[in-house]
Amino acid sequence: MPKIVDHDRQKRQIAEAACAIIASEGMAQATVRNIAAKAGMSPGAVRHYFPTQAELFAHAMNLVKERVRARLAKIRESGLAPRELVLRLLGELIPLDPDTSLEMEVWFAYIYHGKYADGFPDGPQDDLRRGMENLLRDLDRSGLLRPGLDPEVETETLYALVDGLALHAMLDPGRLGRERVIRVLNRYLDTILRPGI
Amino acid sequence: MPKIVDHDRQKRQIAEAACAIIASEGMAQATVRNIAAKAGMSPGAVRHYFPTQAELFAHAMNLVKERVRARLAKIRESGLAPRELVLRLLGELIPLDPDTSLEMEVWFAYIYHGKYADGFPDGPQDDLRRGMENLLRDLDRSGLLRPGLDPEVETETLYALVDGLALHAMLDPGRLGRERVIRVLNRYLDTILRPGI
Repeated sequence: MPKIVDHDRQKRQIAEAACAIIASEGMAQATVRNIAAKAGMSPGAVRHYFPTQAELFAHAMNLVKERVRARLAKIRESGLAPRELVLRLLGELIPLDPDTSLEMEVWFAYIYHGKYADGFPDGPQDDLRRGMENLLRDLDRSGLLRPGLDPEVETETLYALVDGLALHAMLDPGRLGRERVIRVLNRYLDTILRPGI
Repeated sequence: MPKIVDHDRQKRQIAEAACAIIASEGMAQATVRNIAAKAGMSPGAVRHYFPTQAELFAHAMNLVKERVRARLAKIRESGLAPRELVLRLLGELIPLDPDTSLEMEVWFAYIYHGKYADGFPDGPQDDLRRGMENLLRDLDRSGLLRPGLDPEVETETLYALVDGLALHAMLDPGRLGRERVIRVLNRYLDTILRPGI
């Protein structure tokens, strides 16, 4: 009988190994050899699934995107009150625990290297911006936003605030922990949510 | 007569060449050989002034810091009204023209590589955060801030907003140009400045 190989699982295993190495040692150490060793495979097997570095990193980035989406979907179904829901959703995009920290490292490496290397497909930036836009639109449709806000300006503001907090929490986690991030987000929400929400 | 060499000028020339290469081609291309060629020197001369890559990049980062400081000092002396002054100061920290774009690329490369490489001294992050803190304190002392703001939360908010805008303007300059950045900053200033300022 032919050996049955679960290719998706193999690819996922390689992508997870790549993410772990990028997060702990940086992209420079994310060589085929190191990734293969971490995934418990041969370098040839890694090259078989991902002929180029860009394909491998794109797959790793997609893995991160999937994980974030799954967590956000779960939070959305949790029946939280609006402000708490928004805080929980935004908190998933800021490195405040081991999972989000790993994701942030991969994201940061991806956008940095994608700027100069060929063949890196678009990173998560457009998804993130669209996520902010949708979040604000949902709040507006539910009648929770203050009147007179400019949706375009609010989207850019929230998007910049969240990515700025994410960057700073990654660079200086000792200063910018969960409690301080929540205070900053609450202060922002005070300026867009109707009083009492 | 011995040849007179202006060592500071030579070092500056090397640092400028390094900045130009980092900004246009990324840190991976910022090799001693490429930097020497760009600066019109021998690789040996570059190694003489900067025995390690970290020393060279630290010098390049200091060059960027000096330039930004000089521009900010000039703007502070320009006698602008408070809101316009703040907008001009913050605008210098966001890549909206060739100078600030080059500086942002160097900053981004520096913090990215400094995370994983040894011997990179602290980057500009602490200076930037302190700059935001001082700006808000000066506004407060001049009686221009709304009462009841939390200085710590406002510092983190402004700092995250500016770095988030800087990151997004670097990644997508077509979307986030000067006009849109000014609208976002004005919207933020509306929430902290007293009405009418």
